Parts: sequence; structure tokens; C-alpha cells
Amino acid sequence: MDTLTARKLSKSGAMKVLNVALAAAESLNCAVSVAVVDDGGHLIAFGRSDRAELYSVAISQAKARSAALTRFPSGKKSPTGNERDDHHAIAITLAAGAGSFVTIPGGFPLMSQGECVGAVAVSGAGHKDVEIAQRAAAALDN
Amino acid sequence: MDTLTARKLSKSGAMKVLNVALAAAESLNCAVSVAVVDDGGHLIAFGRSDRAELYSVAISQAKARSAALTRFPSGKKSPTGNERDDHHAIAITLAAGAGSFVTIPGGFPLMSQGECVGAVAVSGAGHKDVEIAQRAAAALDN
Amino acid sequence: MDTLTARKLSKSGAMKVLNVALAAAESLNCAVSVAVVDDGGHLIAFGRSDRAELYSVAISQAKARSAALTRFPSGKKSPTGNERDDHHAIAITLAAGAGSFVTIPGGFPLMSQGECVGAVAVSGAGHKDVEIAQRAAAALDN
Amino acid sequence: MDTLTARKLSKSGAMKVLNVALAAAESLNCAVSVAVVDDGGHLIAFGRSDRAELYSVAISQAKARSAALTRFPSGKKSPTGNERDDHHAIAITLAAGAGSFVTIPGGFPLMSQGECVGAVAVSGAGHKDVEIAQRAAAALDN
Repeated sequence: MDTLTARKLSKSGAMKVLNVALAAAESLNCAVSVAVVDDGGHLIAFGRSDRAELYSVAISQAKARSAALTRFPSGKKSPTGNERDDHHAIAITLAAGAGSFVTIPGGFPLMSQGECVGAVAVSGAGHKDVEIAQRAAAALDN
Repeated sequence: MDTLTARKLSKSGAMKVLNVALAAAESLNCAVSVAVVDDGGHLIAFGRSDRAELYSVAISQAKARSAALTRFPSGKKSPTGNERDDHHAIAITLAAGAGSFVTIPGGFPLMSQGECVGAVAVSGAGHKDVEIAQRAAAALDN
Repeated sequence: MDTLTARKLSKSGAMKVLNVALAAAESLNCAVSVAVVDDGGHLIAFGRSDRAELYSVAISQAKARSAALTRFPSGKKSPTGNERDDHHAIAITLAAGAGSFVTIPGGFPLMSQGECVGAVAVSGAGHKDVEIAQRAAAALDN
Repeated sequence: MDTLTARKLSKSGAMKVLNVALAAAESLNCAVSVAVVDDGGHLIAFGRSDRAELYSVAISQAKARSAALTRFPSGKKSPTGNERDDHHAIAITLAAGAGSFVTIPGGFPLMSQGECVGAVAVSGAGHKDVEIAQRAAAALDN
């Protein structure tokens, strides 16, 4: 066959994920940016809490892009804590071009029936970024 | 005095503007990207219709940034069609750095009680971008 | 509500901060660039000492932008010296795009009645950048 | 001889020019950005009026750089009004790299005893940019 079919994240699916993340942040008293991207890393939905720090606008999008293009949560690529992993990740980041990838946690692939259809990422809430993004990722297809 | 006070666009205000734009696009049978930014040009809310062209992701944000930083609709600086207006607009685009400003229509300042609090912009619907963005801009504080 | 209110740094506040920094640098026999930006990272006031190194023009602005958008002093995100802090800072720098953020010290948020209204940053005086910028930041609303 | 001597614009000279421009703008009820650069186009002093449009931050600096590096007022390079001049100027702008040059008026070289020591430029006041910048340029060595 000359073509394949693939699932694509819809606007309404992305908005559902976005709203779950923004509500989760509010319930944790956090001000965040939330980015939802498609399987190519392109933005579908974005929202920023009142008084969220502005750096989170860029960071959330970079995390989401990283998670979508690796089909893996953003952050270290191995759980070993090996310092070399960090340096390797930074090197990959540099090679991929400034602004494209980040190696900090808070981005998660969005899976639908076993396929990666995009990613969601949260920035601005420190170590709670992960919890908020995970809750949002879990909302898809539920 | 060391400080002034100013209005800031809230998340809920930005989401209202976003949703009006997405609904207007749907009613016109158009697939678009919609960007809502604050008065400094930083993204607050973003949404993309199913099947919108991907170039609209970047263009909508550039139009919104242009409208916010000039407090003027994106595009020609005067409606006269005077060639000098185009020249002026190109010069501004260049000066502001590639990717930051655009001189094509579809971005509008968001005004609240006489103050510019941000901007909304639409891309993907051709000449209907302007109508959709204007409807969205009119939704603020209504 | 569609809008919030916020404090904005005025020109006279920014000029006061600038002049305190330039005078502090002179009293320490340092030649520096000083940048004062608003809460969106946009320049309000800038001054460069006679004989300051030219690289300080760009670096001071990047530090100020970093401090404004993170509401945190530029540089390491924690004073622990923990290597992971550096890693995090590098990742933020990359994500934000080359030229926008720096992770070297010398930029400080400007606080007014508990709100971040902008930032001041100093470059050109080596490890004295921090002292000069701190003195300038303390001048606001005093 | 292996070396030359040249006049350099001092910080205090640049601040004088800046303050004359800001006061002239205020007297004309205009909100502007004012940039003063050295003979290499590097910023020495900058100030932005309360409520000046944000695009003026970048444009004023580009005009000043253009005037310093051409030792000629920013804008058309010939007074003929010949359309080809405009296109030529835009081509030069493109060749020089985005963000570097602009072809709109409002930037003037700063002359001291027949030498160009830098430039001042004003943005944000429309056709009054020229008048404000000229008044500021005339303040040097007076």
C-alpha cells in the first residue's frame, strides 16, 4: 500500500487535555503554561495561568515538542542518574538546534490506542510540572 | 513615581477571545490557528482547528505579536494603498528581526477601557482572517 | 473577569535604577553596561560607562530579560552549587532560544509592593556585577 | 603612523542627548523610545517614555545603528523620491541582515567638530520622530 492511516489529535481532544492541566494547576495553587502539540510537535492548544512566569511560555512548548518527537517523557533519557546522560542529552539538544528540545521533565506523550498522537507539557510549577502533565495526559480517551 | 498601574489580560479573558475566534472560524467553514497574546507579545492562549494548515501556527503568533507591540492592526500602517505605507511596513518588519513582525492582516489589538491589554490574531482563512479576528477582539469586556 | 490590574515600571523609576547602578559602578571603579527592562523583558532604560567592554551591551540586556521572565536573579537557579542546577539552567537557556536568556549572574528582578515590575542587570564588572545590580534593584520605591 | 586618534562619544554626552530627546518628546505630547549609539552602532544610552509603543524599542535602535554606520540620516538615501531608491534601500537592508538597518527617518548622526561620534534616533512619534531627533542631535557640544 502506498499510504498508511494514523490517528491524529483533534482540537477538542487537545482542549480537553489543556483544560485538565490548567484545572490541576489551579487545584495545586500553581501558575503554569500548558502546551499541547500534535505528533509533529506543532502547537494545537496553549493556555497560561494568571501570574505564571513568562519563561514558561517557551519552556512548555519546548518540553511538549521534545516529548512528541521522542515519544518519551521529556527529561533524562535514562533513569540511572548517570551524569554522562545529562551531558549527552545537552549535546543532543544543541545538535537539534536552540529552542527545539529540552532535557527537563514535565512533557509527556499523548497516547491513543497505543499510538502517540502528540504531547502535553507543563512549565512554571517546579517539581509539580510532572504531576500536572501526567494528570492531563491521562485525560485523553477517558 | 516609580510605578504606574495598568490593566492586564487575564487567562479567562484570553480564553473567551480564543473561543469566539474558533467558533467564528467554524461558522465560516474555515480552519485556522488563533493566538492571543499579552501587552508584551507573550502568548496567553492558542487554539488550532482540525485540518488547519501548519504554517498558521507561526503566522498567527507573529501577527498577534505585531498587533500587540504596535497597538495597531497588523498589516499596512494605513488603508490608503500608498506604496510608501508598504515600504514603511517592510522596514518595520526588518528592523524588528525576522519572525517577529508581519505586515499581513489578521491581528488586532485587544482594548479594555481604552487600554491595549494584548492582541488576537488569526491565520489560515485567507481574507476571512480579518473578519474572524475582529469578531474575537470585539468579545473582550462584552 | 477579562482583565487584571498590575503595576508597571515607569520611565522615571527605571531611570532612577539606571543612575544608581552607573554611580555604584563608578564608585567601584568599574565600567559597565546597565539594562533596565519591564515585566515583559522590553528595554526601558540603558546606560554604558565610558570604556566599558562592548560585549556588555548585549549581555546586560540578556541578563535583564532572563531575570524579568523568570522573576529570579539570573544565573544558577539555586545557590547550592549542585551540578544539576547548572544543567537545568542550560536547558532553560536552550529552550528559550539563543540570545534570549543567560545563566550568568548579574540580573535581578525589580519588585514593587510584592510584584515583579521588571529587572535590572549589569555586565562588564566581573564578579562585581552582582553587587552593583543588587544596589540598583534596592533603589526602587526607596 | 600606525594609529589614529578619534573622538568618542562619552556616557555623559550620550545621556545629555537622551534627556533632550525625552524632554522634547514630552513637550510635544509624544511617547517615544530614544536610542543613542557610538560610532560603531553600539548602544550607549536608551530611554522609553511611559506608554510608548513597544515596537519603538527595536526600531529606535535600528535607526540609530543605520545613521551611525552610514554617517547619514536614516531614511531614503536620496532625496529624489525615485521609487528605485526605496527598493535599493530595502535591498541594502536585507543584505545587511535583519534587525540591522532601517530605511525610515528619525535617526541622525551625532557630529562633534566635524567627526561623526555616533547617532541618536527616535521612534514612536510618527512624523515628529525627525524633529525630536534633530533637536537631540543639536544638543551635542552645545
